Amino acid sequence: MKKENLAMLCDYYEFTMSNGYFKNGFYKKNVYFDVFFRKVPDNGGFAIAAGLEQLIDYIKELHFEDEDIAYLRSKGIFDEGFLDYLKNFKFSGDIYAVPEGTPVFPNEPIVTIKAPAIEAQIVETFVLLSINHQTLIATKANRIVRAAQGRTVLEFGSRRAQGASGAVLGARAAYIGGCKGTACALTDELYGVPAGGTMAHSWIQMFDSEYDAFRTYCELYPDNPTLLVDTYNTLKSGVPNAIKVFKEVLLPQGKTKCAIRLDSGDISYLSKKARKMLDEAGLTDCTITASNSLDENLIRDLMMQGAQVDTFGVGERLITSAKSPVFGGVYKLVAVEDESGEIVPKIKVSENTAKITNPHFKKLYRYYDRESGKAIADELCVWDETVDDSKPHTIFDPNATWKTKTLTDFTARELLVPIFKNGECVYEQPSINEIADYCREQVDLLWDEVKRFENPHTYYVDLSKKLYEIKGILLNVYGM
Amino acid sequence: MKKENLAMLCDYYEFTMSNGYFKNGFYKKNVYFDVFFRKVPDNGGFAIAAGLEQLIDYIKELHFEDEDIAYLRSKGIFDEGFLDYLKNFKFSGDIYAVPEGTPVFPNEPIVTIKAPAIEAQIVETFVLLSINHQTLIATKANRIVRAAQGRTVLEFGSRRAQGASGAVLGARAAYIGGCKGTACALTDELYGVPAGGTMAHSWIQMFDSEYDAFRTYCELYPDNPTLLVDTYNTLKSGVPNAIKVFKEVLLPQGKTKCAIRLDSGDISYLSKKARKMLDEAGLTDCTITASNSLDENLIRDLMMQGAQVDTFGVGERLITSAKSPVFGGVYKLVAVEDESGEIVPKIKVSENTAKITNPHFKKLYRYYDRESGKAIADELCVWDETVDDSKPHTIFDPNATWKTKTLTDFTARELLVPIFKNGECVYEQPSINEIADYCREQVDLLWDEVKRFENPHTYYVDLSKKLYEIKGILLNVYGM
Repeated sequence: MKKENLAMLCDYYEFTMSNGYFKNGFYKKNVYFDVFFRKVPDNGGFAIAAGLEQLIDYIKELHFEDEDIAYLRSKGIFDEGFLDYLKNFKFSGDIYAVPEGTPVFPNEPIVTIKAPAIEAQIVETFVLLSINHQTLIATKANRIVRAAQGRTVLEFGSRRAQGASGAVLGARAAYIGGCKGTACALTDELYGVPAGGTMAHSWIQMFDSEYDAFRTYCELYPDNPTLLVDTYNTLKSGVPNAIKVFKEVLLPQGKTKCAIRLDSGDISYLSKKARKMLDEAGLTDCTITASNSLDENLIRDLMMQGAQVDTFGVGERLITSAKSPVFGGVYKLVAVEDESGEIVPKIKVSENTAKITNPHFKKLYRYYDRESGKAIADELCVWDETVDDSKPHTIFDPNATWKTKTLTDFTARELLVPIFKNGECVYEQPSINEIADYCREQVDLLWDEVKRFENPHTYYVDLSKKLYEIKGILLNVYGM
Repeated sequence: MKKENLAMLCDYYEFTMSNGYFKNGFYKKNVYFDVFFRKVPDNGGFAIAAGLEQLIDYIKELHFEDEDIAYLRSKGIFDEGFLDYLKNFKFSGDIYAVPEGTPVFPNEPIVTIKAPAIEAQIVETFVLLSINHQTLIATKANRIVRAAQGRTVLEFGSRRAQGASGAVLGARAAYIGGCKGTACALTDELYGVPAGGTMAHSWIQMFDSEYDAFRTYCELYPDNPTLLVDTYNTLKSGVPNAIKVFKEVLLPQGKTKCAIRLDSGDISYLSKKARKMLDEAGLTDCTITASNSLDENLIRDLMMQGAQVDTFGVGERLITSAKSPVFGGVYKLVAVEDESGEIVPKIKVSENTAKITNPHFKKLYRYYDRESGKAIADELCVWDETVDDSKPHTIFDPNATWKTKTLTDFTARELLVPIFKNGECVYEQPSINEIADYCREQVDLLWDEVKRFENPHTYYVDLSKKLYEIKGILLNVYGM
């Protein structure tokens, strides 16, 4: 794809609607859209927000080129005034978002956009795409990393990714979620995610013998080489040849750091046997890497069975989030400004009550218990409300209003931070390592019950009393 | 992602191996790699090859920039001679591939690459990524299109795609597989896949009433407008308002072409009720579009229940191939040239017999029955074999050699065509419409048994006697 500016990566209906807004004057009207999701992939308890950096890059670059205007003109349905307007198009609105790496929950805004109607509409597709894709992969990576209980997890999936950006930005998101590195060199070059890798089966096949292939490799890279041991027969040929070469080439140089990689067969059985062989040969510093169709379920099982694996290389099931490959973030109108500049809340009703939106321009608070430091609940408030965490604060469940909880001794943190103000970026982009560290810290602040892989506890995402009442009024007006 | 040249979208181990090949002189040695797959996604009977055009673009652009070399140098493990070599790197080999849109089967080469070892290794990741991604989506699209039995299928999934190229090239692949259009404007602008779309719920919410929203839209776009009828209540509000507006705005202009779109609720029930209401209002030319979590299974059920849907808009389950989101194409060494230029076959053995490769530089034939025109079998032959379809020809099952079949009255077609010769592209790229037409024709030449959604008949992919014997000799040498 040869396009730096992704303005045209946009659903066609954004243009038909925008042309309409242009002709009826709505294009000057400020509107508010929320990005939120309804369900965590893999039935997990939370997601890890990601994709904001690319959203920012997109907004900064956003403009239409002559060829784009010519393409739209060729459709014969767009007003020349509208096409003229697009020539000078620039995003002029405000964007608020949850920082990348934040654990997020269903039905709370991850991104809020305030902008004139056409601008808010035109960015919809890319905003969703960027947040949906990277949040999906960061969330999956975090599950896999948690299953590995402190063992290293590396991302190996480029070749099975759904397109180039699926590979490159998927590896970025996986690092945010807790992977320690990637096989993808471009993700390292562009985003500083450490890339690594040693050899494919073809390297072994290119030589007259496995021994020659290993020896050549270790002579070339004596610092912590990893040898792939399953080309012919793991335990009869691969591991013995690796041991021989490590002893012949590394030990005389005083080097003891090295590794073998298992890429087929039963990882539990082979890793234990290999560990024993390595230890008996005195190669206790030699680590074992395993790859081959891994995900959090298989890793959990392998850990339970005492597999002797130090590093997990995870490919296709991570880079595509294979068991749950869609993150269902949506983009819903929550408010419009009237002529006087007043913010009028909007609701989208649905025959399916779970699909009814939370109206209005909102704030999102997260409350932490002062003693344990743990996150206890999130609350959605109207934009003009402020929570004072020096006083007791009562929150209640919007679906069961008799269930209330009074918070005392807590700290409140606003999760949505300003990213753009009047079209200017006001956000200082953290480094990828800062994001990954922040993610780890924040996940540590969740109770284990929320982190359970199956049937996790539902974390509280409550509405303020004011917001709850506004929602009730709107439902009475628009409800069925 | 700001990178036109995707040379660095490459697994890091390609560089560690290539540096090794450079230092030991292997880099001048010609090697042969096959791209093939072992299993059809969704347990289908065949896949639709796609992604070749982007593979060609990649090979043509392939070079390393100063910043790429600097990045690699910073790792401190690469030879300066190798880095110098990369500065002038250019693909100089041959590529053969099955044209896009061809139905393909497990264990046959879709792409074959002959090149000096480093070149063949460096292109691995992107070649696999491009073929795996687009073949996955073209294959899924073809399933969905077949389930729709002639009704129109449109691709609507950009916002849920796994990254920008997942969206844009996924929509291209979906068109190859049989979709009639996409919502993605960029895929239209870049690849000529017709984009369309009308309105989101936000359009309706922006107006004081659904009626106003519909009326404004139809006045703006009186030629075949589609109105989204489920914002408030489909049958009580949406359809009646649509009928009113069509009658008030379109009919007086003598226009009868229009449509409604259902995006929630029970599509079968709602479409039948809506059809009745439209017909009773005399709007028999008004068509019904349905969207909302569709895939081939749901469409098949809807068709069985007599749902009155003319057009299916398919989103996330198509653009991610949600139930089977990985296409497992692999890249395996099949031969090397020795000093004298002789082609020496190579095999990759495995403890899992299904993972044993078919060695050698090969030809791939497809045989068609002259009378019915149907495809009856594929055969892998050694590169120097030629099949004469004017004479009877016996093929046999490589896993059950007593099962033979003698073909008479058949035509033979070579599927792998030259794409690059000595680094120069020799392939005339067909248009996207030619590819889609070719795909439809070729799928029509498959027996229904192979096209069954569940448990399809296994199409024959046989080995020539010569190839079978060579494989047997190699297995005796390298087998376990």
